Amino acid sequence: MDQPVIGDVFGEMIRDAYAVRTGIGPRPLAGGRVPRPVIEIIERDDGLINGAPADHYLAEPAEWQPHDVRALRLCRGAVLDIGCGAGRTALELQRRGMAVTGLDTSAGAVEVARDRGLRDTVIATVDDYARATARYDTFLLLGNNLGLLEGPERAPAFLTALAALARPGARIIAQGTDPYGTTDPVHVAYHRRNRERGRLGGQLRLRLRYRLLATDWFDYLNCSVEELTGLLEGTRWRLKSVDTADRPYYLAVMELSP
Amino acid sequence: MDQPVIGDVFGEMIRDAYAVRTGIGPRPLAGGRVPRPVIEIIERDDGLINGAPADHYLAEPAEWQPHDVRALRLCRGAVLDIGCGAGRTALELQRRGMAVTGLDTSAGAVEVARDRGLRDTVIATVDDYARATARYDTFLLLGNNLGLLEGPERAPAFLTALAALARPGARIIAQGTDPYGTTDPVHVAYHRRNRERGRLGGQLRLRLRYRLLATDWFDYLNCSVEELTGLLEGTRWRLKSVDTADRPYYLAVMELSP
Repeated sequence: MDQPVIGDVFGEMIRDAYAVRTGIGPRPLAGGRVPRPVIEIIERDDGLINGAPADHYLAEPAEWQPHDVRALRLCRGAVLDIGCGAGRTALELQRRGMAVTGLDTSAGAVEVARDRGLRDTVIATVDDYARATARYDTFLLLGNNLGLLEGPERAPAFLTALAALARPGARIIAQGTDPYGTTDPVHVAYHRRNRERGRLGGQLRLRLRYRLLATDWFDYLNCSVEELTGLLEGTRWRLKSVDTADRPYYLAVMELSP
Repeated sequence: MDQPVIGDVFGEMIRDAYAVRTGIGPRPLAGGRVPRPVIEIIERDDGLINGAPADHYLAEPAEWQPHDVRALRLCRGAVLDIGCGAGRTALELQRRGMAVTGLDTSAGAVEVARDRGLRDTVIATVDDYARATARYDTFLLLGNNLGLLEGPERAPAFLTALAALARPGARIIAQGTDPYGTTDPVHVAYHRRNRERGRLGGQLRLRLRYRLLATDWFDYLNCSVEELTGLLEGTRWRLKSVDTADRPYYLAVMELSP
């Protein structure tokens, strides 16, 4: 059986989801005629596989989850939307007249964001972008992108890059997921297995797949607020507030120390 | 990375889809709280992966595709619903007062069908069931289950098993998909690759995955009507009519020779 090809999974998927939503451009069809739903497929290193419709990446504000609406009210000054994808939140900030840069590592996703009208975009990691001269007041990590902290090894470097990009008094507004409310034996066993390997329970090892493409395996962190507090120790960021109204999801606001 | 475990993928998936649709029983949740959609994931041997929502397996007649509605009008006498799954079509025939047996190899799917009220069920392959004494007037292969012919090697044995289960004048009513209307380069290349290996272009090699489970790899046939006619040669079945109103899908009616 052929292995999938490493490539811009997220970009290809978003391009198709955009074509399905707008009716513009080629889109996946069954038998050359019947539209296929665009599904994001996520494999975990314990063999778990999950799919979820990809259309939410293109959702208009009226379709958003309430915590995303609340997150945008917390933005101020120049905003860097990290993992902006198809520009869902960055476009809304731009509509509101705010200064916003959309950053993503997926060239395909950024292309869709630009097609949709997002003016200021960067294709880079935060580490690479920290060498640029742009500075920000708000770092936005929505769509569960607190997960980009990855785990205890990666988090300090990620947070240092954000500090290098920060103006005085800058804030990170991040949406995370507390994974520990589950009783599902598959997930409970996975958390235990991770801890036995010296990892955080919700330190997921994942790859994305779409059609013939796969990403490399990467870490993505679902952590409790307590674990997040631990990851901030020794960095220049301090937890300022947590909004847990939409559990298991939460919004964490972190502020740069003077 | 751990490999998935071989198991009753379809049964586990249908059980979850049933729990989601009815609100009864444990169902997949994100973070222990937020309902997850139940997605069927299909891998093909060229590395292609596709997902599709599983809820259609439980669709009520008002939600069906038109060819399924037309197919049920063609049923007469005692019906064997092959690959009955969660009983979508068999339950409707039973409601109409027809004699119907639901056959599936998935114990989990048959359990759901029985929960939903399907009275006569068999967990078996058609080959195994052909050794029983039951005889039928109609064999129903809906939900693309013409694909169970697999290809030129398997089709004769499958059709022989149905002939052994048949009463005089019995008919097969099967829904197939003509795969050759596509211009998608991924599929065009796959059809060519199959032919280079001596297979029919649409002779898919697939496995299903759901959560931690996978099936073994199996063949599943999408063929043109012309290819189907070829597969019937040398068997006791003759193509009687084809309904192509919902292309690329079609309904083929085959009749047993006297």
